Order: sequence, then C-alpha cells, then structure tokens
Amino acid sequence: MTTWPTPGPDDHDLSTRRRYKLTIAYDGTLFHGWQRQQSPTGEVLRTVAGQAGDALCRLLGQPINLVGASRTDAGVHAKGQIAHFDAAIRIPLDRLPHAINSRLPDDVEVVAAEEVPPEFDAISGAVAKRYRYRIFNTSRRPLTMRNFVWHCWTSLDAAAMCDAANRLIGTHDFAGFAAAGHGRSHTVRTIHDCRILRDPPELHVLVEGDGFLYNMVRIIVGTLVEVGRGRFTPDIINHVLDTKDRSLGGPTLPARGLCLEWIKY
Amino acid sequence: MTTWPTPGPDDHDLSTRRRYKLTIAYDGTLFHGWQRQQSPTGEVLRTVAGQAGDALCRLLGQPINLVGASRTDAGVHAKGQIAHFDAAIRIPLDRLPHAINSRLPDDVEVVAAEEVPPEFDAISGAVAKRYRYRIFNTSRRPLTMRNFVWHCWTSLDAAAMCDAANRLIGTHDFAGFAAAGHGRSHTVRTIHDCRILRDPPELHVLVEGDGFLYNMVRIIVGTLVEVGRGRFTPDIINHVLDTKDRSLGGPTLPARGLCLEWIKY
Repeated sequence: MTTWPTPGPDDHDLSTRRRYKLTIAYDGTLFHGWQRQQSPTGEVLRTVAGQAGDALCRLLGQPINLVGASRTDAGVHAKGQIAHFDAAIRIPLDRLPHAINSRLPDDVEVVAAEEVPPEFDAISGAVAKRYRYRIFNTSRRPLTMRNFVWHCWTSLDAAAMCDAANRLIGTHDFAGFAAAGHGRSHTVRTIHDCRILRDPPELHVLVEGDGFLYNMVRIIVGTLVEVGRGRFTPDIINHVLDTKDRSLGGPTLPARGLCLEWIKY
Repeated sequence: MTTWPTPGPDDHDLSTRRRYKLTIAYDGTLFHGWQRQQSPTGEVLRTVAGQAGDALCRLLGQPINLVGASRTDAGVHAKGQIAHFDAAIRIPLDRLPHAINSRLPDDVEVVAAEEVPPEFDAISGAVAKRYRYRIFNTSRRPLTMRNFVWHCWTSLDAAAMCDAANRLIGTHDFAGFAAAGHGRSHTVRTIHDCRILRDPPELHVLVEGDGFLYNMVRIIVGTLVEVGRGRFTPDIINHVLDTKDRSLGGPTLPARGLCLEWIKY
C-alpha cells in the first residue's frame, strides 16, 4: 500500500493491480529523449517518460513506474514507442488513451492502451524494432519538415547505398557501429532488414533488427550516406564490421531525422 | 547615392538599379508575420520581411526596401509569398536565392528570383492569390503537423461545407467576413474559387480570389466549419454577405492552419 498521492481506500490493493502496455508517439524535437533525467545542475529535464509518467500519476492517483522499450535520444521521434506499467485502473481501458492525452502536451500522444500478462516486459520482450531515417535530399530547404529530416544537398547514389545496406543484414558484432561509451558488453545484434526507399525529394533508410547499440542507426546511416556520396565503396560495411573500429565509418547523423516506427513482441 | 553600409564607387549608381521579384516560402510559426514591426516596448520583432530584408542588405551592401504582396499574420505560412525590391546586383541572378538563403534562418527560404520591369509592383500588380487552410479532422493528434493544421475532433459534413463554399464564389461585399479594424474602405472582393478537398485525415479549404480583407480566410473557414458541424446551414453565407454582420458567422480560426500558396500577376 502506498499513500501517495492520496489514494482511495482500496485503489492500491495489490490484487487489483494489473500490467498495461502503452503505444506512444512523439515529436522528439523538444524532449531530452525518452528517459527521465536531470541536468548536471539537478534541474529535471523535459523527457517523454517524465511527461507521460507524471500524467499517468495524476490521472490514476498512484505512483507509476513507466518502463519504455527504447531509450530514444534527445530529438529522436517515435510513432510506436512501447512502455509498460502496473496500476489499479478503474476507468474503462478504451478511454485511457484519451484520458492520458488530455493531461499531456501536444507533442506526445498515447495511441493505444491494452492489458498484458504480468510477465510482459517492454524491454526484454521486444523481438524486433524498426527505425526510419529520413534524408531530405535536394537543394530546397525542408521548411515544414526541418525537425523530422536531415538535409543533404549532395546527390546520393541510392544503388550503392542499397548494396552497402544489404551487407548489414544478418547477425554481426556491431561494435564498430556503436558510439563510444555504449556500455554494452554484448555487441552482437541481428539486422533483419535494411532498405533504402525513395520518396522524392526524400531518401529513407529503414532498419529493422532485434536490438540496437547506442547511436547505431545514426552511424549506420551516416556510413551509408558516405557510400552514396562516393567517398566510400560498399565494402566499408564489411570493413567496419570486421575491424570493429568506429573511426573507419561515417559520421553520426543528427537525431532529428530518426524515428522509432514500431516494436514487435 | 547612399553611403550605407560602405558601398563600392558605382554600386549605387541609379542607372544600375533594377527591380527584382522574389518568391519566398516560410514556416510562419516563429515569425510575427510578414511585416516589419516593433513591440509596444520598442523591441524589433522577428518578421519575415525583417529577416529577408536584412539578409539582402548584408548580401548586397546597400539598403533594401522589400515590398511584400501579402501581409501575412503571425503564425501564417507561405509557399509562394511574392516581394519586390530595387537594387544594383553584381552576382548572377540564378545564384541570388542560394546567396540570400545562406544568410537566412532555416524557417524561411527564397525559392526564386527574377528581374522584372521597373513598373512591377508586388502589391498592386497581384491579380489572384490562393490560400489553403488545413483542418486535421480526426481524434488522433497532429503531432508532427501541429504547427501547420488546425485540429478539429468533431466530424464534418464536407458536402454541406461544399454547398456553403460555392456561395462565396463571385463578387461580393465581404465586410461581414472581415475582422474589426480591417481599415479598408472598399470591402468588395472577388472570390474566383472556394473548394473543399479531402486528404484524410485532413480536410483542406482552398480559397482563390483577387484580394482578401483582414482575417477573411480564417473567418470564412471558421464559418464553413460551423456548417460542417451542423450548427449553421449553408444559408449562413448569404446571410453574412447580405447583413455584413461579422457577429453572425463562425469564429476566426487559428493562424497555424493557413498557408499562402501562390500569387498571380
């Protein structure tokens, strides 16, 4: 039993607490990423988990621990982030998204809510995730899209990028495609699919896999773009995979072009 | 001859000054509209004409008076605003847009530049303008589009809206569709076309005419939406036109859904 913030008599009876799964979409532009965090000076930063968790607390009148599947970075967007939490809920489940949304700012939205078995875990249960990186590939400016694309003036050889993208598919040690300080001892991941889509004037890179290291998608796309520019041949992919040397690949592209599209369980 | 800011010996020879026409696009979200202005406390506000005019001054090294065709309000967007200015230009005209853009923030873009006859006037020469108002008509949130649409949850009867829109076409006194303080003695305008386009989950209102009074499009669309909601019948249009009574129509919708698409000369 908890007494915060003024629960009703039996609201927090453990027998009524169940596990729920939320699908959450957000424009990451004004968020310091998903994960609750403080600045070095102790200021609480504006995060998606913070906003959504606080809205749930206020709505349900009980403390909520919202566990998100992907710790998206500052500026990264999501169409289908998944999170779970345990609570005793009295309002009908189909009204929950609207009830939470009415307590959320307009750059985040709970898209769906469902009850899941108590063993469901948003992090460990994920079997596949898909990210999309949008490249605005024209000399025109991405005026209205500028927070959702990375602007690349130079023309890109999409065929060479496809060739390189194909070499990423499979189970590999992706240590060479992870930012320093990724903090993972296990760097082997499986990429199920990596594709280049033309959507003029945009070029999209779709990457689907069982998990991703820190900055991995942004480094992969940064390397594919260098292939598209002709600075690298597609062999660079094998080279970085083999050597695990981060310094050989392309740059880490900006967060704003990246969107977490879906997570499968 | 002007001596500001340090012109070359013959840069400002009147014989070399010609008239130029710019096509300008912008995301109006962070602008206090087109027109240069100061706050009540004398602070210079961030306007499109201010940013673009200052960029031209810096680029060309001479004072520039940039005259825009439409004084779009704060928050209103443009794909094809037109402006003219007189200057002595030494750089090739086809490089002018890029040269100006490199001095502009990323929410405004000079799309095209061309030389025009000295009698060309962006304001008085305009024979038709088209505005588009985007209504995001679903219970889902317009996350990434939220600065470019107006969110309307309730379902709208597009057929009734079309009926009402048709009644606006023609030459009428639109005083009843203008905000108080519009300051125009002449309130007769011609609407060439007014259409409802479905682009699910959006509904767009396209209005084309020879000129528009203050807030006229936002009031027209606000009135069409009340027809779509069933609060008014399409007769409301004739009623407002006949009585010239602003209080009878619908509300003035927010600026963010409105975009100036093009201007014809």
